[in-house]
Amino acid sequence: MTEAEFIAALRGLPLHPGAHGLADDAAHLGDLIFTKDMIVEGVHYLPGDPPGDVAWKLLAANLSDLAAKGAVPVGALLGYALGHDDFDRAFLAGLGEACAALDCPLLGGDTVRTSGPRTLSLTAIGRSAAAPLRGGARAGDALWVTGSIGDAGAGLAIARGREGPAALLAAYRRPQPLLAEGRALAAHVSAMMDVSDGLLIDAARMADASGCAVSIDLAAVPLSAALTAFAGDTRASRLAACTAGDDYQLLFALAGDRAPPVAATRIGGFAGGRGLSIHGAGAPLPLPASLGWLHD
Amino acid sequence: MTEAEFIAALRGLPLHPGAHGLADDAAHLGDLIFTKDMIVEGVHYLPGDPPGDVAWKLLAANLSDLAAKGAVPVGALLGYALGHDDFDRAFLAGLGEACAALDCPLLGGDTVRTSGPRTLSLTAIGRSAAAPLRGGARAGDALWVTGSIGDAGAGLAIARGREGPAALLAAYRRPQPLLAEGRALAAHVSAMMDVSDGLLIDAARMADASGCAVSIDLAAVPLSAALTAFAGDTRASRLAACTAGDDYQLLFALAGDRAPPVAATRIGGFAGGRGLSIHGAGAPLPLPASLGWLHD
Repeated sequence: MTEAEFIAALRGLPLHPGAHGLADDAAHLGDLIFTKDMIVEGVHYLPGDPPGDVAWKLLAANLSDLAAKGAVPVGALLGYALGHDDFDRAFLAGLGEACAALDCPLLGGDTVRTSGPRTLSLTAIGRSAAAPLRGGARAGDALWVTGSIGDAGAGLAIARGREGPAALLAAYRRPQPLLAEGRALAAHVSAMMDVSDGLLIDAARMADASGCAVSIDLAAVPLSAALTAFAGDTRASRLAACTAGDDYQLLFALAGDRAPPVAATRIGGFAGGRGLSIHGAGAPLPLPASLGWLHD
Repeated sequence: MTEAEFIAALRGLPLHPGAHGLADDAAHLGDLIFTKDMIVEGVHYLPGDPPGDVAWKLLAANLSDLAAKGAVPVGALLGYALGHDDFDRAFLAGLGEACAALDCPLLGGDTVRTSGPRTLSLTAIGRSAAAPLRGGARAGDALWVTGSIGDAGAGLAIARGREGPAALLAAYRRPQPLLAEGRALAAHVSAMMDVSDGLLIDAARMADASGCAVSIDLAAVPLSAALTAFAGDTRASRLAACTAGDDYQLLFALAGDRAPPVAATRIGGFAGGRGLSIHGAGAPLPLPASLGWLHD
């Protein structure tokens, strides 16, 4: 089964109302927010990635889901597959750095041992008084994104051996969950989510969950100077940036006439109908074959 | 690193006060209780175990940790490794049965794909107004256990191919978390935990966390009629029962003169000092080489 088929089947099971029909990255229980990610060696991280960076990213990716809810981190439960001592020690050091820097203490967890690729799991808990959903965008809303898009995708190419600047590699290995920005935005947006699988696929998911169409101006998508120096600024490089994963920027919908309370770029808008379209210089552009990083 | 070494190292990281120094199976956040288990194919379940039973046991084992806190289940987050369609479908069916029968809806989760042995993860959330810890036993308390011990261990032998009764196999494959019993006991006990790795090792852990010594009368340990018919009733069979895992009975400490509000058997007591001892017919017995199922 694909992930989508599995999740569709899960919807036939008894669901908590706070699961939002499994249509969101996070679940609610009163003002508590829950999110859970698993990562697999060789799938979600490279076997050569430094273990401390793997730990950082495991926590940061979960906290990015909390950031999209405007939440303050409360704690994390770790599921860890024990392996080689050197890896374990470096992982612990990186996790300790991440817990301290991102202000998220450990609540508990479990360890196992496996002969196969390591599978790691983390459940993060946060608290948010006004958590936006991804499905609240309305026709007429503008689509905004924080920061720059595509740096982590370039960083992955560098981690795989291409020459490139350390800043892009760091964007891939040590992403920063935008917790303060998420809290500042939460009460203002009509929908919010983090960009984890690629801007295009995540925008399409927001539109789908909201029952709207979304259109993105490819030329408006913010690219960093480091990325354009590394990959150029062509339609192809912009499409590559918009379909790469691991950005962990915040993507949000805001009523058309409002300005967001944090630095962000307006990249498109929502309208009646369904689906994603992209355009450049006023003309529609064909969608790329892949909109982002699919799990299957 | 061993699990114990890893957990000891984790204690150097920022910990939430509700983590209880990682000395318990569950963490607290107000009246919410969190527990997380990972299971690995070939380690925690047999590759030939029916997928629906694997799902049942994953949820039941977590809910057993909640039972030991006197908690009502609130919801669960599933971390699932996708694999063969037949397994996935049968797993979903078993999980649906378990969620309905054990009254625990799904809150969310994540799926991954791995080329290695499946690793599955579940975080269960419960609510308890008065959750006992495992470390609250006092010298003079009696040690009690619900139900019977060793059935699941015999069931594992049957799952591995030995002839034996279906009731013992079911004890291994479809354990029942004692949620109602846990709630009835929570306000009365001085310490409680579930028996998941073996009666002897879990009793030793309770004594260690409580700063007491514990003594167990091997002859008092309750064995089912099915187990004694299957394995006999000798010192060796009793030691095998007391060191097998997956019982999911509740083990608790109660002030010496009190009777528990649920059916249970008094099997020993706590005293000053440290460590575990066992005796039979009034005489001390040597401890077996292994006290239970160790994760490493």
